[in-house]
This record gives sequence, structure tokens and C-alpha cells, in this order.
Amino acid sequence: MKQYKYPQFSEWKSLCERPLQNQKNLESQVKQVFSEVEKNGDKALKFYTEKFDGVVLDDFKVSESEILEAKKLVSDELKSAIKMASENIRKFHSSQAEEKKIIETIEGVFCWRESRAIENIGIYIPGGTAPLFSTVLMLGIPANIAGCQNIALCSPPDINGKINPAILFTANLIGIKNIFKIGGSQAIGGLTFGTETIPKVDKIFGPGNQYVTFAKQLALNYNVAIDIPAGPSEVLVIADETSVPEFVASDLLSQAEHGTDSQVILLSNSEKNIDGINIEIEKQLAELPRKEIAKIALQNSKSILLSSIDEAIEFSNYYAPEHLILAIEDAESFTSQITNAGSVFLGNYSPESAGDYASGTNHTLPTNGFAKNCSGVSLDSFVKKITFQNITKTGIKNLGKTIELMAEAEELIAHKNAVSIRLKSLENDN
Amino acid sequence: MKQYKYPQFSEWKSLCERPLQNQKNLESQVKQVFSEVEKNGDKALKFYTEKFDGVVLDDFKVSESEILEAKKLVSDELKSAIKMASENIRKFHSSQAEEKKIIETIEGVFCWRESRAIENIGIYIPGGTAPLFSTVLMLGIPANIAGCQNIALCSPPDINGKINPAILFTANLIGIKNIFKIGGSQAIGGLTFGTETIPKVDKIFGPGNQYVTFAKQLALNYNVAIDIPAGPSEVLVIADETSVPEFVASDLLSQAEHGTDSQVILLSNSEKNIDGINIEIEKQLAELPRKEIAKIALQNSKSILLSSIDEAIEFSNYYAPEHLILAIEDAESFTSQITNAGSVFLGNYSPESAGDYASGTNHTLPTNGFAKNCSGVSLDSFVKKITFQNITKTGIKNLGKTIELMAEAEELIAHKNAVSIRLKSLENDN
Repeated sequence: MKQYKYPQFSEWKSLCERPLQNQKNLESQVKQVFSEVEKNGDKALKFYTEKFDGVVLDDFKVSESEILEAKKLVSDELKSAIKMASENIRKFHSSQAEEKKIIETIEGVFCWRESRAIENIGIYIPGGTAPLFSTVLMLGIPANIAGCQNIALCSPPDINGKINPAILFTANLIGIKNIFKIGGSQAIGGLTFGTETIPKVDKIFGPGNQYVTFAKQLALNYNVAIDIPAGPSEVLVIADETSVPEFVASDLLSQAEHGTDSQVILLSNSEKNIDGINIEIEKQLAELPRKEIAKIALQNSKSILLSSIDEAIEFSNYYAPEHLILAIEDAESFTSQITNAGSVFLGNYSPESAGDYASGTNHTLPTNGFAKNCSGVSLDSFVKKITFQNITKTGIKNLGKTIELMAEAEELIAHKNAVSIRLKSLENDN
Repeated sequence: MKQYKYPQFSEWKSLCERPLQNQKNLESQVKQVFSEVEKNGDKALKFYTEKFDGVVLDDFKVSESEILEAKKLVSDELKSAIKMASENIRKFHSSQAEEKKIIETIEGVFCWRESRAIENIGIYIPGGTAPLFSTVLMLGIPANIAGCQNIALCSPPDINGKINPAILFTANLIGIKNIFKIGGSQAIGGLTFGTETIPKVDKIFGPGNQYVTFAKQLALNYNVAIDIPAGPSEVLVIADETSVPEFVASDLLSQAEHGTDSQVILLSNSEKNIDGINIEIEKQLAELPRKEIAKIALQNSKSILLSSIDEAIEFSNYYAPEHLILAIEDAESFTSQITNAGSVFLGNYSPESAGDYASGTNHTLPTNGFAKNCSGVSLDSFVKKITFQNITKTGIKNLGKTIELMAEAEELIAHKNAVSIRLKSLENDN
């Protein structure tokens, strides 16, 4: 980690810069994939699956027997763990459902909103080194609670044409029936346009590499919504002398092992604390299977000595981290000062990995500064909130003149008429 | 309106198509504007304001004296109307605030979320024929309730370098201090990059022409969020024989007068009803100041005879209208069947113009089929919901094994360590 001491405010902007993404060639390739998938459907999907995943598939859809096989391959211990996590996630996300509240704004004018599930959703689960079955929980469970009718899950096949059994087990556990062995931008194209096998969806969720991320942005042009703009994962830890250097180091490393482009920021008001944490990082890093990845990520990372915890929180709000850990005394008393963050972990016993897997909160969160203007995924992400209004005769009498005056001032006379004509019909009505 | 009778389901797709937008030249022009504004700031804004609005401005910021002048120009009657609408909008949007609910997902694991205002927002208000001060209310009031710290409002100047007084009065009423006389894609560029005069914002709200809409899409590439993808306004009315043809015609026309690209759909289970409404449309149309606009919009519009109200609702869900009016008997009993719509108006005395101006609901709503996957603007649009978790020693003991197993199965050993190291420290702790 690069070390900084008491930087001036004028330096904050450059300290908050995320590692640059190399987007060269990406745009034209993804656009090409989209155009082929739109034109040729499954045929294009087959072509790109062979090209990018190195496997020829006759059928993209995961069969019943593949699910059965996957169930056998997952240990009972892991199954129980997934079930426990799933219950916590269900409990927390269920609490996000909005109650219907009918508001009488003035006498006779009743307004409320009701949530409705987005009917068709697509979930993308990356393949690669880490089989992210936890993301199946994070996206599938709220989709389930919302009542999304059609859920299509896409994940790239390995070289043997298989999807990791833990992913299949988890998808099956939460009732996802349509699982497809397709990855990359071709999967996003399939969900955007629909093919013979893949259903067209209304909204696409899930993380992915830069191709997938760019493809999701492109899907927006075809009336498909997406969860959040994605970027490399990041954590910011604010620590003071009450923090446990071992714990903080383990949290920083658990972020750094995600990918070489992950970013890790440590803020503290104590130089001794920073030194202690750095020593622990070196110690723990040596033992990690993914230490080569973590090492590169740490090169993009920073530890910054600041004058106070208040200043550290100010810096954190400026940075707007995806994950924020407050390893400080009386952490909860600082929550009201946090204005920009995806998810916040309080105290010494709330590691980020709790939220990544099992505490109940969602791990699909805004990165790259989007915590300034976006929320993480929640039950809200799977519904639309539709407003309703029911206006009685009394209501339109109370409201009518106001609407007429405003419509007239906006020179929209037909808008005015829609009220005048009703008021007139009520003139003899008491 | 084009008339259709009992169309087959196979025809629904083409019946639901929106009028095509001509996007030629738009992309390169807007990109050029963005690049100039990014490079040259205010100088570029001045250049484009002269070019597109035909006026040379020394200062974009609306002055205190311009506000005072505007206050004098707005009639007392209109002022009262705006105040009444503003109270209703405030009441309804205040009810959307989420209460903090702390959920103990398992013993010792406490999760909740808290809303935080998006700090810097931009509001765009179009100029042109209709001065949309009502949109100032619809965007400014929830921004106000949310507690957004910096609100910048941009609206194009007229040929005399002025903004309509009703817009200025309304903005001032709800406490917006930074009002700028800039329109078009140059305004969106200014809010995206910031200039000497215009602040950079985190999220941009508001309707606009195709240039503004495209510019907002482009802003997404620069980490700026936007409210919703915008398109021409639309209404779908479901009527039966209990509807009042005069009322329905007035609602259809109030949508048609918005612009030549507006779309109006009438569904009914009664041919007589459709005929009656069409006769009323002709009658009312003749009297409208904006009849030439409405006539063209009606050419894009359809009346469709269907076999039942249930089928009409099914069609409406398929179309996913921005505004849906249920001018049918016992309208409220059908609400649970509505799955895709922006805002719904129930019964004979709930005209769309009530929601456009004064009932309390928001009028910034998803068009062009986006009601399938997006909500309209609400208080939610001005906040992020940040998740928090506080895990006690007992909590991490309860959750630890689950996280370890899952992290290990995802081959993320540093994630596992972050828990193991804490569990180990607690081994002798009871």
C-alpha cells in the first residue's frame, strides 16, 4: 500500500481516483456480439460459446439431471451453510417490502403507491476462478420475495460444458428453473433480445468482467434496465487505536484478493495503528492462495494518516466506498455522519465477509463512486412502485380550480378542460 | 385515431409500438457539445446559448432582482394554486420516507438501512411553448424533503435572455437558490462536468427534447446518474359503458396536446362507448389552441375494441403505459391486476391532469415501455439507501462457520480468514 500522511484537501481528488480501466477494443467487440445475437439467436450464442469458452454445446439449458448431479456434489455442510445464509438474506430483504399507505392529500383526494414485481429478470453469475454462488442468493432471493415471474440465470460453462455445482444447487434451492450455460457479452445479448432458448428480460442483474459490464450498459439502449453500473470491488476501512490490527489486515486482504483491480483504502488517526496493520498484512498475505492477485491490488491501494476520525469520515464520504468498515471506538455513534457508502460494517466483529455471504444484507453494491448517487441492490431493485389515485367528486371540487389555473399558465388548455368539464358536470351536484 | 377491433394476441406487439424517434445527427452533435463544455466550460456554454437560443448572456445565473421581478409578474391566483399543489406534493412525497427498521437476522447480527440524500442534484426544466413550472415542484419538493444540499436548476433563456416568471417563482418558493439560464445538451454537459458557473452534480433530473434526453444518457458515462430514460408522453385509457365520453375525450386530448409525438390509446369493451368518445374528441379538438399538435398526435393513436375489461387490462400491462386511466365501473377492484404502469387514475373524477399538477403524485414517469422495469420519480430517487450492520461477538460466533464454509467454497480464503481470525480471538471468551 502506498502511504500518505495528512494530505491537504486539494489532494483528496487524486487520492480518490480509481484504477483506470482499459476499454480498448471492448466496445466494438461487444457491439458485434450484440448484433450477431440479435440476428442469429442461438446460432450466435453457440458460435461465441465455442470461441470464448472453448466448448461446443448442443443445449444451453441446464437439465434436471445436471441439477441432481450437482446436488450430490455439494457437501452437506456447505448445503446447510447456504441455507442459513439464505434465511438471513430472506429475512432482511423481506423487511424492505413497503406497506401500502393511502394518503388523503386534501379531502377527497386519495394517493398511494403499490409495488409490483418486474416480470422477467435475468441474473448473470460469472464463472472463472471463484464460483459466485453467493451472488445467486443475493439476486435470486429478493427476486423471489418480489414475485418476479420469470427468472433466467446465465453463467458461463467450464471447458467441460458444466456450471459449478454450488451455483446449480443454490439456484435450485431458491426455485430458479431456467439456468443457461452461457457467459460473457453473448449472455447479456441473449437476455436483451431473446433467442430460441433464452428469454428476453426486462432487467439484468449481476456482476461480470468488463465485457459483461459494457454489454449491460449497451442493453440500456434496448429498453432493458440494469441493476447498477459495475466496477472493481473496493473497501475503505477507518481504524483507530481500538481496532485490532489483525482483524483490519484480514478485511483489507479479503477485498484485495477479489481481483488485481480491487482497491483497498485504510484511513486512521494513528500512525502506530497503520504500521501495525501493515505488518499484519505482510504476515497474512504470505499465507494466501490468491496472494499474487492481492499483491497487485495492494499496489493500487493506499493507507492515509488523517488528523481525526471526523476527517476520516469526511474523506470516506468524498471517496464514496462500496464497503466501509468502521473499526473505531463507539462506531455506531458515527453512522449519522456517513453520507456516501454502499454498505457499512460497524465495530470489530463486523467483517465485510459477513455481508458478502450471510448476515442478510446484499453484496451487490455501487462501486467507483456511484455510492454518491446509487443504492445497492435491495428488494426495491426487483419492483416498480406504481402510484395510484382515486379522486372523489368532493376531491375534484377541492382540487379543480388549482389544476385549471396551473394548466392555463402552462398553456395546456386541454389539461384544463379535463377538469373544467368535470367541474361543470358537478355544478348541480351537492 | 386508428381503430382496431378484437385484435389477436399476435398483433399486440405491433399495436404497442411507440412512434419511432429520428436520432440522426443527434449523437455526434451532443458528443461535440459535451467535449466543448468539458474543455472550455462557461465559454462553451456561452457559445451554444448564442447558437441555439439566439441570445448572448454575460451571466447565466439568475439574479435576485430577476426573482423579485418574477414574483411581481405571477398573479396572486396562480401563486395560491402553486402553493396548494406544492402542499399536496409535499404531503404525498413525505409519506414515502422509509422508517429505520433494525432486523436481527440471527442472534447478535443486526442489519438495517438508512436513507441519505444525494448531495448534489441538477434539475432541468425545458423552455419552449409550455413553461413547465409544475416540473419544478415535482423535482424540487422531493429533493427538498430528501435534504439534497445543492440543487442546481437549468432552464433555457428566451430570446430576451429571460426564464418564464412562473418557473422562477416556483423555484424560489421551494428554496432553490442556484438557477441558471442554460438549456439543451449544453446544460446537461455543464451539470455533468461542472464549469466556472455551473456546479458538477451527482444526478440529473427532468424532461427535455431528444437532445437533452440523449445528453442525459451520455452523462451516465461520466458517473452521473439520471432519473429515468425519457420518451414522448403517453396515456392509455380503459373505458366501459359507465364512463363519460366527454371526460374520456378530454383526458385523451390532454395527452395529445403535449406534443406531436405523444401517444394516446383507448381500450374499451364497448363499440358504442368508443364511438361516443370519438365524437367527443372531434368536438373538443376543434376548440383547442394546440389543436394542430393534438391532431398529429392523434394520428399516432389507437382505439381498440377488446372483448372484456380483463383483456383490456392484460393489453395495458403488455403496453406498460406511463399514465393509465381506469374509467370503468368499480375501478379500484381492478388495481391488483395492474402490473405495468407509471401512474394509475381510478374512476371518472381522477383525470390525468390532477396527477400532472396537484393531487400529490409525481408526474415524472416512465415512458416507452419502461414502466415494465422502472418506477416514476419519488422521494426514493433523491436518496441512497445505505445498509448498515453491527455484529456482536455472539453474532460472529453464530454466523462464523457459515461464512467460512461459503468463502472456502468460493475459493476466497482471505474472506474466510477475516472470520477465522475473529473466531479464534473469541475462543476463550464466554
